[in-house]
Amino acid sequence: MKIRLSRPLVLASNSPRRRQLLAQCGFDFSTDVRPTDEVFPNTMPPDAVPAYLARKKAEEFQTDIQDKLILCADTIVVLNDLILNKPANAEEAVGMLELLSGNSHRVITGVCLLDRGTYTTLTDIATVTFRKFTRSELDYYVSNQAPFDKAGSYGIQDWIGLTGIERIEGSYYTIMGLPTHLVYKMLEPYFLD
Amino acid sequence: MKIRLSRPLVLASNSPRRRQLLAQCGFDFSTDVRPTDEVFPNTMPPDAVPAYLARKKAEEFQTDIQDKLILCADTIVVLNDLILNKPANAEEAVGMLELLSGNSHRVITGVCLLDRGTYTTLTDIATVTFRKFTRSELDYYVSNQAPFDKAGSYGIQDWIGLTGIERIEGSYYTIMGLPTHLVYKMLEPYFLD
Repeated sequence: MKIRLSRPLVLASNSPRRRQLLAQCGFDFSTDVRPTDEVFPNTMPPDAVPAYLARKKAEEFQTDIQDKLILCADTIVVLNDLILNKPANAEEAVGMLELLSGNSHRVITGVCLLDRGTYTTLTDIATVTFRKFTRSELDYYVSNQAPFDKAGSYGIQDWIGLTGIERIEGSYYTIMGLPTHLVYKMLEPYFLD
Repeated sequence: MKIRLSRPLVLASNSPRRRQLLAQCGFDFSTDVRPTDEVFPNTMPPDAVPAYLARKKAEEFQTDIQDKLILCADTIVVLNDLILNKPANAEEAVGMLELLSGNSHRVITGVCLLDRGTYTTLTDIATVTFRKFTRSELDYYVSNQAPFDKAGSYGIQDWIGLTGIERIEGSYYTIMGLPTHLVYKMLEPYFLD
């Protein structure tokens, strides 16, 4: 499936999952990732953080964007009001998964599209319910699939997602890191044909 | 990820998606598909149909199962009380998708495990909400991805699933055709180690 756009699209993300999803939607794009200081105000409600950080990533492109469309995204995992980031090591990963075990949590993905001087942001939220895990299941997962590049220490498309998620409410792809149905609509004004 | 089972596992399904999901759960298995007459009583409520058909598929193995575990599944798409099967051709596929467009429908997967003389069945239900599609989007999808082996004429992992599903409630993998979290629990009594 190929969709032609009126402008060159740049995905500013290192995530192989986001790259795969955007390609599966039918878009051609290049990638260009610039270092961003992923800091947000302490008092910011968790739901607002991903769009804030996605916009911050887009701002790195402001001065030399030319005619390109810059697409940025950020995903966080929130248990009650606690934000779970990427784990620093195996111990931290198992610790996060122990918090998620037997509970529902929210996955929040923010997206920002920069078109010349205009920033458009959106946020999508999904709920994930995990069954109770045993400690040996968590050790098994973390040592085999090393989820160190993933907020909350898991990938829904990994073994732990297949065998451990009882239900989700919302978009599966938002949980993977890109609300594809919303990105498609966001880019629709640029479709050729 | 590898899980060792105390008995040989046989997946009785031609679906490449089910094979991939069962492998990703960590199970080794062989496949053996036997022709089954997929007929069910007229008066049967839709929710009961997939488990009924999964059991019927398992019954084909009854006489020569030996020590094998036979795993069968069936998936249907239900809009209100209308069951949508696999489409016979492109026209039927587009027609089904026009019914699903802008609506929520249910995806019901039934599973049957045959262990010597004992049949265990389970059913899992998920809800899918599609945005409104244009006719040209549906033609585009059907002509490019030929969803003729899929109940309801779509795959959630296809282009139309990425760009058109606003939300799901339940298990993504049940919608793909195998409730992996329940199959994992169903097979747990046979885990070695």
